[in-house]
Amino acid sequence: MKEINGGVCAPKGFRAGGIWCGIKTSSRKRDLALIYSEKSCTASAMFTTNRVKAASVIVSQENLSGGKLRAIIANSGNANACTGEEGILAAKRMAYLAADLFAISPKEVAVASTGVIGVPLPIAAIENSIEALGNSLREDDAGHEAALEAIMTTDTRKKDGAVEIEIGGKPVRIGAMVKGSGMIHPNMATLLCFITTDAVIEKSALDKALNRAVRISFNRVSVDGDTSTNDSVFIMASGEAGNEAITGGSEAFDIFSRALEGLCIKLAKAMARDGEGATKLVTVNVSGAKDDKTAELLAMSVASSSLVKAACFGADANWGRILCAMGYSGAEFDPSSVDVSFAGAGKEVQVCKGGEHFPFSEEEAKTILSGEEIEIRISAGSGNGKAAAYGCDLTYDYVKINGDYRS
Amino acid sequence: MKEINGGVCAPKGFRAGGIWCGIKTSSRKRDLALIYSEKSCTASAMFTTNRVKAASVIVSQENLSGGKLRAIIANSGNANACTGEEGILAAKRMAYLAADLFAISPKEVAVASTGVIGVPLPIAAIENSIEALGNSLREDDAGHEAALEAIMTTDTRKKDGAVEIEIGGKPVRIGAMVKGSGMIHPNMATLLCFITTDAVIEKSALDKALNRAVRISFNRVSVDGDTSTNDSVFIMASGEAGNEAITGGSEAFDIFSRALEGLCIKLAKAMARDGEGATKLVTVNVSGAKDDKTAELLAMSVASSSLVKAACFGADANWGRILCAMGYSGAEFDPSSVDVSFAGAGKEVQVCKGGEHFPFSEEEAKTILSGEEIEIRISAGSGNGKAAAYGCDLTYDYVKINGDYRS
Repeated sequence: MKEINGGVCAPKGFRAGGIWCGIKTSSRKRDLALIYSEKSCTASAMFTTNRVKAASVIVSQENLSGGKLRAIIANSGNANACTGEEGILAAKRMAYLAADLFAISPKEVAVASTGVIGVPLPIAAIENSIEALGNSLREDDAGHEAALEAIMTTDTRKKDGAVEIEIGGKPVRIGAMVKGSGMIHPNMATLLCFITTDAVIEKSALDKALNRAVRISFNRVSVDGDTSTNDSVFIMASGEAGNEAITGGSEAFDIFSRALEGLCIKLAKAMARDGEGATKLVTVNVSGAKDDKTAELLAMSVASSSLVKAACFGADANWGRILCAMGYSGAEFDPSSVDVSFAGAGKEVQVCKGGEHFPFSEEEAKTILSGEEIEIRISAGSGNGKAAAYGCDLTYDYVKINGDYRS
Repeated sequence: MKEINGGVCAPKGFRAGGIWCGIKTSSRKRDLALIYSEKSCTASAMFTTNRVKAASVIVSQENLSGGKLRAIIANSGNANACTGEEGILAAKRMAYLAADLFAISPKEVAVASTGVIGVPLPIAAIENSIEALGNSLREDDAGHEAALEAIMTTDTRKKDGAVEIEIGGKPVRIGAMVKGSGMIHPNMATLLCFITTDAVIEKSALDKALNRAVRISFNRVSVDGDTSTNDSVFIMASGEAGNEAITGGSEAFDIFSRALEGLCIKLAKAMARDGEGATKLVTVNVSGAKDDKTAELLAMSVASSSLVKAACFGADANWGRILCAMGYSGAEFDPSSVDVSFAGAGKEVQVCKGGEHFPFSEEEAKTILSGEEIEIRISAGSGNGKAAAYGCDLTYDYVKINGDYRS
């Protein structure tokens, strides 16, 4: 597996573009994106589990039921959520406008939105700019970059990637872009992830690979319970690589699945690091739990704790908060078997042994916790279960950003 | 029911006191408290559900199994949690030292601690000051005040109260003090609540009344899932009022139970208002839910949302975040039947009707949200279930306080 350039345009058969259509009235930054495939793609998607679903999610769920996609149209600056019947019509109109550009079926177009909730989507702005959007499509990195810019809201960094693997002697590419910031209630910062691949892959194998990858990447950022109204992950497989079709359980599936997982974990870490107001990436690695599920509960609880996040911001080795967060996670473990270390910049300092204070140098701990990448290593001491979760620190800027988001 | 002075010393038969013994090394504020009853009290208690329990909780649970108490000894500045076998011995020693003052059984002494986790309790400091603590006992308001001061940590206000009711023609008093601040993960700011009453009441009735009161007060502050290692609520009934014994289900029980509920709700609201860094009390009132349990899930989810809290801080009428928090609460409801209003200072502004935007004056909403007491009124439109939850805004100071708690 090697990293390559081009993002969602790296796999064969895809073009992408992005423009400003007028939804972001104050910043005048790009706010409308399009990803288009020359051929009909095998497609798979995962959506928010929030009971309050954005209109774009409802329409995309319906369109994805056919398992085929040609295009994704997405806007930022407005979530088109809590917008009633009018919102549904606007989302359908978005799909129709994109489909009309290429004379394809609107049912093969996915729709995604991110931004403020409860404000009607200015669909006229999209309608007026749809030709310009079509004209912005490019099959190189610049097309990818423009589309990526157009889905960003409070994101401060571009989060994307592409890899090439070999399947049966043929090069196969996977490219992705993601939008979203790790937060206290992180998934409320809408996660939008668009993945393209030129692999030939069966629908059921694609579903399985996406599900597995999302579970250990985006669903491991800070909190999995708090999902926004708009979270959507799409993958489109154009089949242009010409490999023998990947089926579930095959060796080729493992190669593809691992590559997709690696790409998604990279993007999930980038999301956590780009948390609203965040200055540090905090990775929580739990080992020695009863099983993987238990390790996941423990890791997520620690990565989600506001007190742990605030301590990371203050570079304070307050390990008691880690045990406390483990204790209310609902996971089964023996507190008196827990070891905790902080690691970073090639150093490690153990702070807790057997659930109790382990003498450590405050200065060394402070050095590690002052770094931009902090790892909290937890050994639960009662099995082989392990899991990682990704979070960030809680800072003044988080409060600032979210204290007046709408204006 | 009338409010009276004296806190935990208001009911007959109780004395209280508090001193500085040296646990709070930097501030030199009071850090050791004692509440003492002349007679053996019928007692009831509720403790944290965190799997990681402080030594004081473990020892108190054991001592409370007899259902009787004579005294509560409590310290601030150190949680005596994650301190292993040595911590258990220290907690037992605290009970023993208090018991020794009055030649009573250590089994009739409850122990409570609050402060930093994972640091051995300096039991020698308590031992050296135990006589001074005994000498500090007073049966008036000053004794109550000293004890209350001695259990405060990041609390900025004293939170206490006392009421008098009449049972069978006899005046009966209930007094209480509480320590703790509403937070994002609020119960991690340890809740300690000590309640005294001079009622004659059967043990089972006392258990029932305490359980009911805690459920709709302290367990409704911001988040109920996140419990600290040290949360403890104790109630001691001296029987000095000489009323006919209160039994479960009687009219007298209802009077007592309602008075206890009212007192606990008052203190829960005071806790939320005194949230770490908080500038506002945010009350979430849900009505029209399928049932009370559903209303509770919805109210707690909204009151706990960091994004809703940050919007309250910024006086931003971002009602979409309220619907989003309802959506991930796990509660069953129909988003298209939800109405939302903001209320405060005698005014009310509706912002959402039927799950969608309802035209409102941003200026009026801003005025309400700029007040010190904000009420979020939610009608779920599908039943008679209702519940209230209490929270606060999320501010820069929260991050400041928790970014460097230990120093």
